[in-house]
Amino acid sequence: MSGKKERILSERQLIAEIAAQQKGSEPENLIQGIGDDCAVQRISEGRVSLLTTDTLVEGVHFDPGWHPQYQLGRKSVSVNVSDIAAMGGHPQFALLSLGIPKSCDQLWLDDFLAGFTSALKDYHLCLIGGDTVHSGERFMVSVTVIGEMAEESVCYRSGAQSGDLVWVSGFLGDAAAGLELCRRGMTDKGKVQTLVNAHLDPEPRVALGEELARSGLVHAMMDVSDGLATDLAHICTASGVGAEIDALSVPLSDALQEAAACLQIPVLDLALQGGEDYQLVFTTSSDSREKILSLVSDLGQHVSCVGRIIEGSGVILCQGDERMDISYRGYEHIF
Amino acid sequence: MSGKKERILSERQLIAEIAAQQKGSEPENLIQGIGDDCAVQRISEGRVSLLTTDTLVEGVHFDPGWHPQYQLGRKSVSVNVSDIAAMGGHPQFALLSLGIPKSCDQLWLDDFLAGFTSALKDYHLCLIGGDTVHSGERFMVSVTVIGEMAEESVCYRSGAQSGDLVWVSGFLGDAAAGLELCRRGMTDKGKVQTLVNAHLDPEPRVALGEELARSGLVHAMMDVSDGLATDLAHICTASGVGAEIDALSVPLSDALQEAAACLQIPVLDLALQGGEDYQLVFTTSSDSREKILSLVSDLGQHVSCVGRIIEGSGVILCQGDERMDISYRGYEHIF
Repeated sequence: MSGKKERILSERQLIAEIAAQQKGSEPENLIQGIGDDCAVQRISEGRVSLLTTDTLVEGVHFDPGWHPQYQLGRKSVSVNVSDIAAMGGHPQFALLSLGIPKSCDQLWLDDFLAGFTSALKDYHLCLIGGDTVHSGERFMVSVTVIGEMAEESVCYRSGAQSGDLVWVSGFLGDAAAGLELCRRGMTDKGKVQTLVNAHLDPEPRVALGEELARSGLVHAMMDVSDGLATDLAHICTASGVGAEIDALSVPLSDALQEAAACLQIPVLDLALQGGEDYQLVFTTSSDSREKILSLVSDLGQHVSCVGRIIEGSGVILCQGDERMDISYRGYEHIF
Repeated sequence: MSGKKERILSERQLIAEIAAQQKGSEPENLIQGIGDDCAVQRISEGRVSLLTTDTLVEGVHFDPGWHPQYQLGRKSVSVNVSDIAAMGGHPQFALLSLGIPKSCDQLWLDDFLAGFTSALKDYHLCLIGGDTVHSGERFMVSVTVIGEMAEESVCYRSGAQSGDLVWVSGFLGDAAAGLELCRRGMTDKGKVQTLVNAHLDPEPRVALGEELARSGLVHAMMDVSDGLATDLAHICTASGVGAEIDALSVPLSDALQEAAACLQIPVLDLALQGGEDYQLVFTTSSDSREKILSLVSDLGQHVSCVGRIIEGSGVILCQGDERMDISYRGYEHIF
């Protein structure tokens, strides 16, 4: 079983290998292929198109037992929009591919599409194409989103520099706690609704991403979809640097702290290893601190400085005297 | 069961309805949304981007029992490239979304990806993004292709005019016969290999589509993916016209005629109602006949004039004294 799992995971690498085979023969208008949140294509002097695709499969990415179809329709859009936000772009068009099982109920589908449409409206996206197929046993939705922006403002993963500050938007871990609460059927207790919503209907940081990109202050950026330990490791690998995170600076909501105690899961595990927060992680030079805080405050949003970029490699969590390499989720004591 | 089927088919319309709700609020750089082979987005003065997506699901769109994975990988690209060819465009980029079942075998997957890659090379496509997910029981592949071309040359479905000639490229019905031969396990007899190949590994008409678009002679064009009776009906509906097809002019390969006799299926059913030929159907004014024949001959390709566009609606098959409305596949005597 674990062999199977490894094999499937390695398919991501296989797709990357196809991309590697293409090296040197890419069209000159392709600025970034596989390897960032979006592909980046130059469409005219100074303007680029951003392209991204994401698939959700029943029983793998969502459980219809607790994921209301309306929120699922919204989430199928949001997870892609978040990839556009991660580059600092403006989402514009969507393509929808729906795989509908024989057992699918009409009302269920209508609610899904109502949610899908409401998210299109929220992000001013225009649906420009689609495909509807029978999918056998499982509901499946694959969405492609196309965005655009100024070429000079695109924020890649690869620009982090030693000495940079590492920032994250909002709170981390809420979505992971929400998922766990749903799994355990504990969705009706106290303040958990914001956590559950963070899992069911995440809100990508489009306005923040655009503003940060326009400011020219950001060196590297991506969205937090697989957990900070993994996503910051992607930035470090792409940039050829390492990072230190200060455990005390990781932004934790009150609701998360209560839920973590209740769930008996270490709160930092949820915040650093839990996925699907769809917040932004980005780096800036250390003298941009005040400008970033002012820019974010003007948008009515919230960011935290959680650490800094260092020479070397890996993502190191600093907690008291302890330093642990948490790159790609794997906790491993190094001191 | 039939209720379910109708419901699912009507989801195509539901996606079209989402598009209809958007009317008036589309961005000004969107020239064509849902309703043609590709969406058309203006990317710079005089240039457009073409976008299309298509999904193949195991047991629905292909039978792994007879569809070799290498050819399936190729076909997942080709069916999308054909949509680009249908507008007269030049395919450029691809995004791949793979749903891999737990039972999937490593060699099978490697062969699939080898076929996928070979088709990328054939059409000079660059893979720029992708997503790999567990899909439960069935293998599933969703591909998005992006092409580009001159805005003034784009061939839509909606330009057919009364009096136009109706042309099709290549032969019709080969893929439908190939599918039936595969279904019945009759793939090793005589000349059937070209028919089986037409089903397993279709060859979209990219060079022909581009040349036709550049010529400025084409009024309307699309690819023949659902059978001429259906696809020409789409052109007629979009253009507000009707069409007459001369049964004797429908291009039938020798192999098809032999196979149809052997399969005991009327050859015109295969040629007009059978899908997946991925040939082009297009209309031109009647005085362009010689220019079209000369252009196509220069490319070493073959087209047939199969009828003409008339006022009114519907696709009428003329066979001796009989006239039958065959729009959208449904044979129905009207005289």
